[in-house]
Amino acid sequence: MPRFTHKRRVEFCDTDMAGIVHFSNFYRYMEETEHEFFRTLGMKIVEKQPDGTVIGWPRVRASCSFEAPARYDELLEIDLDITRMGVKSLSMNFTFRRGETLLARGELKTVCCLHDVDGTFRSVEIPAGHRARFGVDAQ
Amino acid sequence: MPRFTHKRRVEFCDTDMAGIVHFSNFYRYMEETEHEFFRTLGMKIVEKQPDGTVIGWPRVRASCSFEAPARYDELLEIDLDITRMGVKSLSMNFTFRRGETLLARGELKTVCCLHDVDGTFRSVEIPAGHRARFGVDAQ
Amino acid sequence: MPRFTHKRRVEFCDTDMAGIVHFSNFYRYMEETEHEFFRTLGMKIVEKQPDGTVIGWPRVRASCSFEAPARYDELLEIDLDITRMGVKSLSMNFTFRRGETLLARGELKTVCCLHDVDGTFRSVEIPAGHRARFGVDAQ
Amino acid sequence: MPRFTHKRRVEFCDTDMAGIVHFSNFYRYMEETEHEFFRTLGMKIVEKQPDGTVIGWPRVRASCSFEAPARYDELLEIDLDITRMGVKSLSMNFTFRRGETLLARGELKTVCCLHDVDGTFRSVEIPAGHRARFGVDAQ
Repeated sequence: MPRFTHKRRVEFCDTDMAGIVHFSNFYRYMEETEHEFFRTLGMKIVEKQPDGTVIGWPRVRASCSFEAPARYDELLEIDLDITRMGVKSLSMNFTFRRGETLLARGELKTVCCLHDVDGTFRSVEIPAGHRARFGVDAQ
Repeated sequence: MPRFTHKRRVEFCDTDMAGIVHFSNFYRYMEETEHEFFRTLGMKIVEKQPDGTVIGWPRVRASCSFEAPARYDELLEIDLDITRMGVKSLSMNFTFRRGETLLARGELKTVCCLHDVDGTFRSVEIPAGHRARFGVDAQ
Repeated sequence: MPRFTHKRRVEFCDTDMAGIVHFSNFYRYMEETEHEFFRTLGMKIVEKQPDGTVIGWPRVRASCSFEAPARYDELLEIDLDITRMGVKSLSMNFTFRRGETLLARGELKTVCCLHDVDGTFRSVEIPAGHRARFGVDAQ
Repeated sequence: MPRFTHKRRVEFCDTDMAGIVHFSNFYRYMEETEHEFFRTLGMKIVEKQPDGTVIGWPRVRASCSFEAPARYDELLEIDLDITRMGVKSLSMNFTFRRGETLLARGELKTVCCLHDVDGTFRSVEIPAGHRARFGVDAQ
């Protein structure tokens, strides 16, 4: 059973002139699924700390394999699984389905970062409170 | 003669399943034209001040009338004219053409704002240095 | 009471470096609201006819006035009202709110078109079946 | 020496609230580079055949590793190399740089397809004329 499933309607403006969802939108769909997952855990993908710094999760790597096209108005089901939680990074797998049909498989590796007020950021250890909520042991 | 003309190739991902440029992209094209215009004046649409605040130009209003569709790979010419410079606001007109064919006409009203480091912002008078570069008298 | 209300979460990728929803996305939000409205009436914004032609609704004009910024993770309420149904065109108003706060007001004028299999399209009278479902008399 | 280099200004609307280019846009940048490359070879990514069918290049797989953030107004240089031309597929590598700084590395695998007038499509062998222009032997 996947860790989390997000349902997502394909919007008209997600399509291109080939009549199918433009491949770049699958990455946006992955991100929406990830953020919805964070939301269900009571977390935000961008969290302001009391000192004005912000904890965010920039991407280290993202990939997607496309098996079948998605089209306007279809209701996609996107499964998310955590595949690895490192000291600073989180890796997730995604499976896109329309009913029984597999549409795509994606991967996202993201790293916990502290954003300073001047816009710079650096990777940091995933806070203990976050780890507990992910419910996965660090590897 | 228009104040400034920007040439813009229609990208594949700007189209939708109807085979034409999605209407929301005309607003992005207007903005790109505006930013390119600022660039030719030696200005940036987002300018960091020595004290960490930022001068930006959020939108007050934007509209566009669509006369003919634009399609993939076409080279659009987008004319920009300043129609009014107020104390705090700047209004521009845009005309989209493909050769002799008129595609769309747009309008953008934008207001000069000071963004604080905490993310809030408020409208301010357009700085004198900016006014001089726009070369338009305030009305 | 508005004709239809759509709730829409602001996604991370809808924001820009100013920390607010990029203005072009308000047009996408209007369109999503319109399409969701069509869906509740049992209609699709792109309907294939038995002869291979397609009924679609390209835009004639769209505008939006921005009153207050929308930010990541906020839940927007978008009201849609039909303001005029002509012989071939449909005009709608949109109001964007976050709780009691008015964020923006938009307008969309769209025209019923028949898309041929070769990609060309021309305006046509709104079919009687569609009119009945909109529940508005032509003006 | 890379096969082809495309220069691309980062647009304001490509950024997100973290102040950097949203990762999904790197896939759009890859595609723009690929299309510009096709253009220099006198080819289009969407080519209508005399019988109404269309040759297109849907994606099989795309990935990107992010080394350093890209920001508004920066001028990116994007190198494209063909890594493999199969019977039906084309694989490319992309390197994103800002001056001497490596920003990202991407890969795109795309397959030559014939799109029927009804919107369906199937993979086909890359036409001989295309092969000659790519100047790479099939593997």
